[in-house]
Formats: sequence, structure tokens, C-alpha cells
Amino acid sequence: MEFRFEVLKTDPSGARLGRLTTPHGTIDTPAFMPVGTAATVKGLTQDALEGLGVRMLLANTYHLYLRPGHEVIAGLGGLHKFMAWPRSILTDSGGYQVFSLAKMRKVSDEGVLFRSHLDGSEHMFTPEKSIEVQQALGSDVAMVLDECIEHPAERTRAEQALARTTQWAKRCRDYARTHGSATNPGQQLFAIVQGGMFADLRRESARQLIELDFPGYAVGGLAVGEPQEMTCEMAAEATALLPPERPRYLMGVGLPEQLPDFVRCGIDMMDCVLPTRNARNGCLFTSRGRLPIRNACYAHDARPVDEACSCSVCARYSRAYLRHLYMSGEILGAVLGTHHNVHFFLDIMSQIRNAIAFGNLSGFSSELQIRLGAGHS
Amino acid sequence: MEFRFEVLKTDPSGARLGRLTTPHGTIDTPAFMPVGTAATVKGLTQDALEGLGVRMLLANTYHLYLRPGHEVIAGLGGLHKFMAWPRSILTDSGGYQVFSLAKMRKVSDEGVLFRSHLDGSEHMFTPEKSIEVQQALGSDVAMVLDECIEHPAERTRAEQALARTTQWAKRCRDYARTHGSATNPGQQLFAIVQGGMFADLRRESARQLIELDFPGYAVGGLAVGEPQEMTCEMAAEATALLPPERPRYLMGVGLPEQLPDFVRCGIDMMDCVLPTRNARNGCLFTSRGRLPIRNACYAHDARPVDEACSCSVCARYSRAYLRHLYMSGEILGAVLGTHHNVHFFLDIMSQIRNAIAFGNLSGFSSELQIRLGAGHS
Repeated sequence: MEFRFEVLKTDPSGARLGRLTTPHGTIDTPAFMPVGTAATVKGLTQDALEGLGVRMLLANTYHLYLRPGHEVIAGLGGLHKFMAWPRSILTDSGGYQVFSLAKMRKVSDEGVLFRSHLDGSEHMFTPEKSIEVQQALGSDVAMVLDECIEHPAERTRAEQALARTTQWAKRCRDYARTHGSATNPGQQLFAIVQGGMFADLRRESARQLIELDFPGYAVGGLAVGEPQEMTCEMAAEATALLPPERPRYLMGVGLPEQLPDFVRCGIDMMDCVLPTRNARNGCLFTSRGRLPIRNACYAHDARPVDEACSCSVCARYSRAYLRHLYMSGEILGAVLGTHHNVHFFLDIMSQIRNAIAFGNLSGFSSELQIRLGAGHS
Repeated sequence: MEFRFEVLKTDPSGARLGRLTTPHGTIDTPAFMPVGTAATVKGLTQDALEGLGVRMLLANTYHLYLRPGHEVIAGLGGLHKFMAWPRSILTDSGGYQVFSLAKMRKVSDEGVLFRSHLDGSEHMFTPEKSIEVQQALGSDVAMVLDECIEHPAERTRAEQALARTTQWAKRCRDYARTHGSATNPGQQLFAIVQGGMFADLRRESARQLIELDFPGYAVGGLAVGEPQEMTCEMAAEATALLPPERPRYLMGVGLPEQLPDFVRCGIDMMDCVLPTRNARNGCLFTSRGRLPIRNACYAHDARPVDEACSCSVCARYSRAYLRHLYMSGEILGAVLGTHHNVHFFLDIMSQIRNAIAFGNLSGFSSELQIRLGAGHS
């Protein structure tokens, strides 16, 4: 299959119903991608992911570069074969993890020098290196290396990072054009709009990247602590300029109740660790808001986690059992909680797509806010 | 369904092909029961257990008594409902865990006083209390409280424990007869033959317990460090006397290559933490012996864990991927390793049953020894 993106319907709000095709299948958009950091969505088998209807997942280049190493994965035929996942994969550039996880970072125009959080060894990620690693992994969508900045950041800092991100995007593009992925020749490269919390810088970043002509665009550096209105505003500044026939990906968002708002900013793809990480911490998402499963009130509760949920966990297991598993530190607690939470996020996305199709996204969004705020009896 | 045991065929070796029926279904014997300590076989969903063909699992009374508490489980309709497991369950008496896990034990004729390994709280397990707890859990097979002794143990020590075990077995039986399990009225109580490593004491223990008339008998206090020939000898001393129409359960065994030998001692049921615990430590059982998946030699190995295995893990994932998961401490490593190991043990039991049916258990046993000793390329 060749890479292709079709917009099937555009809502007056800006929301789009679409279809993304990669060498590993088709994804209905707007889509939510679960995060599979180290080539595994923590706690879920690939059978479970398929059963949940996951069409595309995200894997972290930084983690896989350090362990087991991109060359090991390339030698085994690429990431799809390595993790036995036949559907689509998006890899990040590694930049965000270097900025958030690695020790000792030195950023220069050349790239980022850092020490591994695993063993302290020294590594350099240049734009070219990031693409080389992602080509070895053979993901369907690779991301350019961008400079991530702290929040809040001064305007001059945001300007510098913007300029460097554009330079690096160009170097990534040029390297990708001249090399290509041996394991996945159809791999595409998306650029990342930066610009901090400055509307004009977001527009400027988008303009510069559009000129470099990428098959898809992400909006990065958001959901870093700013209020949600700001996230939406910054995302909307970018999407207003981005070519409508190309997919747009908002990185690292968000809460269930926020998803419709991001879609209304014209976003087609999202990813977030919330459903998986929160599950491991005992925070379960439900149609009536979050349910902290460790609470003593659930010790005798025979009801499913979410009585309105159609997932296999809610069909079989009680809150009392899940609470017991969490209190006992049992693996199955994380497994079942993650299954439910990922199902919950995918189900909201499915409802969002239906709402766009029926022209009722705004009504769905309001209803979702009320539902999620209802609380548990 | 009523409790029933049928011996379908007896081998000249003493091995029996049978069928055990409990209120929660039928188990082909000889059977291996995976251990679900805290109402979960660590790392496996109940769907996975069903898919693997598990017909009966073991749960630990000591753990469930302490957390979440047997009364919590009874309030939720018993252990089957609590853990959403419709098939058979055997519970131990809690005695073994008190002797091996709890702090500060004081054994008297009355029972065992101990402190919880979780919070140091003080508890007393009498024979009556153990049955009360197991009746609250509502398992299909409950076990009498027995006195477990250290190994090696003096003859006088073994004699005292034997005598106490018989007294306790009688008290358990009397309590069970007068009370019964509200959640599982068909629950049956098995006695446990003790006697240390003394053949005549094993026979004496069996004789005393047979007189008390139990619907099934276990052999306990073995696989505690003695050589395998000794385990078999002690088990055979007991089974030679035990009524042939009642099921026999050898507690806490064993290695894959030992399973046929125990079956040849006339054993119908076995349980062991080996497949599950070893999986979590990266030790995978295969048709060519054990495979330590962390070994560097598997980093680039695209082959399945066991090329002769028909499990869903071997059908999909490579050694290289499983090694990566273990090295990264990923939940999925434990999940997939446990799935494979439990499949491996159940598959050997299935082959043992076939070998008895075809009158070829001794040939199968020799062939298994050679196969498991072959090693990996």
C-alpha cells in the first residue's frame, strides 16, 4: 500500500473525518495512537491490541536506539517484524525523550549530545542520526528531530528553537530523500511545528515547514503544563495554515474530555501515555469520569469498572477484583486496567468520528463533558 | 455437577488415566494445576487460562485470608465469582504458607499462631479456621490443615507431625461435615499424607487417614530438597495403600522431566509454581530443555522460543523480542513467558494422558528425558 491521506468530510468547526493509508494498513481519522515505548504497549499483547482495534501505535526512537539498538531491530527485519505487529507504526524522533529523560544534554546546531538514562553512555542525536535510526526501525511515519523547550519559555528562546527546528527539519528531509528505509521504503517523514506559546511564532514555524513540503505535519511542544485553551489556540494557529490535504498530528495529548476539542482544531492524529500509564497507577477512565480503583469503597463492589463499557474487562471482572489485583501489586491489575483504558480512548475516538459524520461534534463534545463530570455512585 | 472420580485405565506401572468431576466441571487426569496464589495466575487473564485449556487451578488460602479477606470474597459470592473463573478451583489449607512465609510461628495442638508477612498482624489458623476460610472461598476441593516439617527432619519430629496431622485432619473433617460451604455446597475435603522421608511413617499416615474416609488424598511434605528417587519412593509408599477409586494429589511438583515419574507412582493431580515463577525470571521451558531468555545469544535470534511448540506465543514472537522484553523489565515479557510455560506443562500432561491411553508411558518418559536434555543450538 502507498502512503495516502483522504479527507472524507470537514465539519464547520474545522474537524475532519479522514482516512490515512500507510504501507501497513488504513487508519480511520481522527485517530488515537497508544504509546508502545519499548516496542510494547505496556501490559498488552499484540493480539489484544488487534482485538481492541488499534490501527497505529507509537514507538519511541530514543528507547529503542538504546535498547535493544536500532541495528539489532534492522537485522531482524525492522520494528514490525521485531515486535510482530503487522499494522502501522509511528516513531518519534527521540528528541523529546532526550530532553526529558537523558542526563547531561548539550544542544548545538549540530544536534543533541546526551547520556543514556540506562548506563550513562554518551550519544549524539543529529537530525541525520535520528532519521538513520528511524529508517532502521522502518516505521510507517517518522518524525523530524526538533528542539523542545521548557515551559514557560521566553520569546527569544522560542524563536531560537523555532529556527533550529526548521534547519533540522530540512536536514532530516534531505537525509530521508537521499537514503530511504531499507525495511520500509514507503516510510514518510512528518515535520513538527514549534513556537512555544506565541501565536505568531506558531504561524511562522508552520510557514517555514510548509515551504519544505512534508507529507504530514505535527504540532509539538504543547500539553506541557499550559491551560487547555492555550493548547487549542496554538494548535489552531498552526492548522489554519497547514495544507488541508495533509494529515495533522498533535503530539502527546490528551485527557478524554479534551479529545473532541483538539479534533475541532483540525487535528487528525493524537497520542498519549495517559490511558496506559494511568492504568498502571490504578486510575481507570470511565464514562462517568475517573475511577481510582484503589479506593476502599470498591472493595465490595461487584459492578464492572464502567457499566456503560463494552470492553472484555468490564464484561468479565468486578471493581472488587480489580481493586484486589492493584492492592496486591498483581501483573493482571495492570494488564486489565490498561486494556480497559485503551478501549475507552479508542471508543471516544470512534464516537468522535461518528459525531463528525452525523454533523454533531459540538453536541457530542458538550454531552461528553457532562458525562465525564458525573462522578461515580 | 456432583463430585466424582473415575479411573478409565490403569497402567501396569501404576499410572492412571482418569476423570475428575467437580461442581465446576471435568478435569482429565493426570492433571497439572497452575498456581493462582492471590486469585490470579500471575500474568495471565482468565480468558488466556481458558484458551490454554486449564480446567482446575490452585489458589492459596493464606494469601486470600490476609488479602482481600475470605469474608470479602464470600460477600461477593465466593472465589469463582470473585475472580471470574467458572472452572474448578482447589485451595490449600494455608498451612504450608504459614510455615514458609509468615513470621513468628507457634505450633500447638490447637493450631498455628503466626504474624502476617504483609503487616505483622497476629492470626491463628486452627483446623476449624482453615476449613471455615476455605468454605467462605467456596473452592471445589479444600485441603486439611497439616503440620509441615523442615527437611531433613529427625524421625521423632516426623512422628509427632504425623500424629498432629491426623488429629487435625479429623477436626477438619468434622468441621466440614457439620458446616459446609454456603457458596459451594459440593465442596470436597482432601486429606494429606505426611511422614517425612520415612517409608513406614508414610504408610502409617496413609492408614490413619484412610480410616477417616476422605474423598481424595494428597501426599504432602515432599519436593522439599530431597532427591527425586526419594520423592517417588515416598509417594509410592502412600499410593500403594490409598483406595484406588479416590484421586491422589502430589503437592508442589515438579520439573517437566519428573512429571511422568510421579504419574507412574499413581498420582492423578499435581501443582507447581515452576512454570509461572520461572517465566517471570526469564527461564522458559522448551522441548529441548530450559532456555534462559536473557542470554546474549538470543539477542538476534528470530526463531520462536520453541520451534516444536504450538502455543500462540511461539506462533507470533521471536526469542529476540522476548529477550528484549525481559531485559527491559517489560510486563509483556512475564505475560508471554508465563503463557508459553503454562502451555508447555499442560502439553506434557496431555502427552502423558495419551501415552497411558496407548500403553506407552514408559517409552514416552524415556523419550522425554532425552528430548529435554538435548539443549539449544
